[in-house]
Amino acid sequence: MTKKENILIIGAGLCGSLLALRMAQRGYQVQLLEKRPDLRKVNIGAGRSINLAFSDRGIKGMRLVGLEESVKKHCIPMLGRMIHDKEGNTFLSAYSGREKEFINSISRTSLNALLLDEAEKMPNVTILFNHSCIKVDLEHASATFFDENHKKEIIFQGDIIIGADGAGSVLRKSMFLHRKFLFSFSQNFLTHGYKELSFPATKEGNFATGKGALHIWPRGENMVIALPNKDGSFTVTLFLSYREGEYNFDNLTTPKRVTEYFQKEYPDALALMPNLETEFFQNPVGALGTVKCYPWSSYGKTLLIGDAAHAVVPFYGQGMNASFEDVVVFDAILEKHQGNWHKVFTEYEKARKKDTDAIADLALDNFHEMKEHTASAIFQEKRKLETTFEKEFPLEYYSKYSLVTFQEDIPYSEAMRLGRAQDKAIINLIADGKIRADHSHREILDLVKKETEAILHDDAVVKNLM
Amino acid sequence: MTKKENILIIGAGLCGSLLALRMAQRGYQVQLLEKRPDLRKVNIGAGRSINLAFSDRGIKGMRLVGLEESVKKHCIPMLGRMIHDKEGNTFLSAYSGREKEFINSISRTSLNALLLDEAEKMPNVTILFNHSCIKVDLEHASATFFDENHKKEIIFQGDIIIGADGAGSVLRKSMFLHRKFLFSFSQNFLTHGYKELSFPATKEGNFATGKGALHIWPRGENMVIALPNKDGSFTVTLFLSYREGEYNFDNLTTPKRVTEYFQKEYPDALALMPNLETEFFQNPVGALGTVKCYPWSSYGKTLLIGDAAHAVVPFYGQGMNASFEDVVVFDAILEKHQGNWHKVFTEYEKARKKDTDAIADLALDNFHEMKEHTASAIFQEKRKLETTFEKEFPLEYYSKYSLVTFQEDIPYSEAMRLGRAQDKAIINLIADGKIRADHSHREILDLVKKETEAILHDDAVVKNLM
Repeated sequence: MTKKENILIIGAGLCGSLLALRMAQRGYQVQLLEKRPDLRKVNIGAGRSINLAFSDRGIKGMRLVGLEESVKKHCIPMLGRMIHDKEGNTFLSAYSGREKEFINSISRTSLNALLLDEAEKMPNVTILFNHSCIKVDLEHASATFFDENHKKEIIFQGDIIIGADGAGSVLRKSMFLHRKFLFSFSQNFLTHGYKELSFPATKEGNFATGKGALHIWPRGENMVIALPNKDGSFTVTLFLSYREGEYNFDNLTTPKRVTEYFQKEYPDALALMPNLETEFFQNPVGALGTVKCYPWSSYGKTLLIGDAAHAVVPFYGQGMNASFEDVVVFDAILEKHQGNWHKVFTEYEKARKKDTDAIADLALDNFHEMKEHTASAIFQEKRKLETTFEKEFPLEYYSKYSLVTFQEDIPYSEAMRLGRAQDKAIINLIADGKIRADHSHREILDLVKKETEAILHDDAVVKNLM
Repeated sequence: MTKKENILIIGAGLCGSLLALRMAQRGYQVQLLEKRPDLRKVNIGAGRSINLAFSDRGIKGMRLVGLEESVKKHCIPMLGRMIHDKEGNTFLSAYSGREKEFINSISRTSLNALLLDEAEKMPNVTILFNHSCIKVDLEHASATFFDENHKKEIIFQGDIIIGADGAGSVLRKSMFLHRKFLFSFSQNFLTHGYKELSFPATKEGNFATGKGALHIWPRGENMVIALPNKDGSFTVTLFLSYREGEYNFDNLTTPKRVTEYFQKEYPDALALMPNLETEFFQNPVGALGTVKCYPWSSYGKTLLIGDAAHAVVPFYGQGMNASFEDVVVFDAILEKHQGNWHKVFTEYEKARKKDTDAIADLALDNFHEMKEHTASAIFQEKRKLETTFEKEFPLEYYSKYSLVTFQEDIPYSEAMRLGRAQDKAIINLIADGKIRADHSHREILDLVKKETEAILHDDAVVKNLM
């Protein structure tokens, strides 16, 4: 089952490594090129998304390549959001009322290393690190790289080039600058940036706070979150406006002012951060952007995948999961039309685009949900109801969060359509006082279902006429 | 009232000319640079948007510079959409039930010439044609131009540079390539392109079809439209998919096939097009794109305005009107904060962005409305009802079209919010059979108002929680 085509994959990050492994399993000759050094040998990129939320769509990708079991030992389950208010009170808002529905904190480096190790075992995979892509000739499927080891430019020829080169994709830039077809493209930045900080493990090597949750300090416009790491530490991320509000990245310019801000807004977190002042001025401020584009392929020879095609903000914890799902969807279409790359690429991009658009939009919604709504009474009431529904009627109700995160066979676009209608139904029923104290849970669920149906009906009627 | 600042305006199209005139009236030193030759002396750009739909927001711009009366003699009123079906039947769908609400067909060249003539009369305006902007130094407010007359590069220094250089703006590109601030940007193309054609005047010099309407041949996926010109001709535009459907731009490659397509889909239009085959192969296919970006200004020294900041598809006939409204909004904010350009620019972009985003989205909606919905029974019933409301209750009801086009004091974003809710209300009431034959117009309007209120209420409740 060896195939003659040479597949050149740009980027050996999570998506590129998974794709390389899968393509190799299918018998293709795979060249995987990565601009950075081998992350298994060199410690790189401190201060930028050290850990990730790994959930069912990501697991499906690992299952595709036979690594579902291997990945589990790297996972730390997080059962819900642990909300911290200003007074230091906490409460856990479960991600689902169904027991098996939780997300996992995982180290980006461990997951990437696992995939690289497996890819490297394949005889038909070559991996080259320190090769930085400069440009791609779309019509001839050749790509120019700068080889950092030998300090020279080198051209690689593929039959097919797949760009898994992330949010700053060079393949995508080559498509943008190419003038022979219309290339739709957008980059949209939030008014907020992020900075990575940490809670170190305690002296005894334990977690400084509960490890079984994703911790959130919602403060309206800004927030802090924390995810556990295997070594007992937490990676902490501050999401803060660049310019607005009393405290912002532009004016947090002295250690004293940084501590003052944390003391005022996040006192219980500050108590766990002995290195705050050092880390704050060592680590960079990262931008939060959404990238969309279309088409993803050109000339039946090149294709964008993962963040290169659709970078999203991190608030749904779905960036990597969506990229892994890309590989699953791509693989199924490749299976159908093997040999006809033009058909594979165009069918893939057409089938997949609406879903990656959906997760991009959902991730933006979730920014507001996390930093603001999680602290609101009506939102908390909604989540309580939803968890109750999921516990008592597990086959009848799936919240938007559950549809997006745990129902990996439901496309993101459908999860968005149904999930948003449900949210609108519940919030309006609560706000309008239509849920009474003497209603049973069964009656409330029926009310929600009926209202959701009405919303979906009204939207469907106008969809074709507005 | 002479002011010392030199204002350099890139682009002497409609928006740049209006802005130059207004800034000169305010006493600034204005340099207006245009890459093309003087359109009053050279015939340029045949085959690309020869005429435009001019309406109340555009008129407000002309009023600002004292040209409201002068522009009127260039206008041909269009009272509604004349819908042509495949059998050659026509019916007029009025733009409004209020008599004074109509749009105008106007020649792009005449309008631009009028503005250039007035600007040129000002002692503090210099206009240079054949000067093509290459790049802008944002931090120093200097711009490099290629002078086509002398075939050399030349650098112009301004205190302020305003880019009114259209959808392909060079100032915007300089912002995109500048790496010192986050620049959100999108370009999105439709799967359809357009081609300009014509109905010549009759031998007697008369209009070949009714001049008092905007003619539409809606055919579901594609359409033809026609707008009257002062010389008795019509400018006709075919909007057609590049690749999809039986007939498309990719496969209309022979004169025979073009005529066959028109014979099949637009037979009554074909009868008025003696030059169809020649024009079809002479004129280019234009792309239909939406451009959004943010911020519009940098360093308190440069600003994007008009299409350069927000190019829209042409289906609401609002592109030029929106650009003229830009000048009106900008002028009011300039009046408030004269001398503090940083404040003028940031307040302007913040105030205006939501409205230009809204008209961009409304214009996309209208593509589907024109090519598809105008031919549907339920849509026609909606329009009939709305026209009746506007006739019988002129102070109580304004359709979305009327809010956008004729209510120039209502911002686009508000017109969109209210207009979409009304559309959804009416369409659902009709579709669900809730409008009965024995209802009076008063009763129906009350139903529509109540349903609209309910929709707006439900949306408002969730707006802050979803």
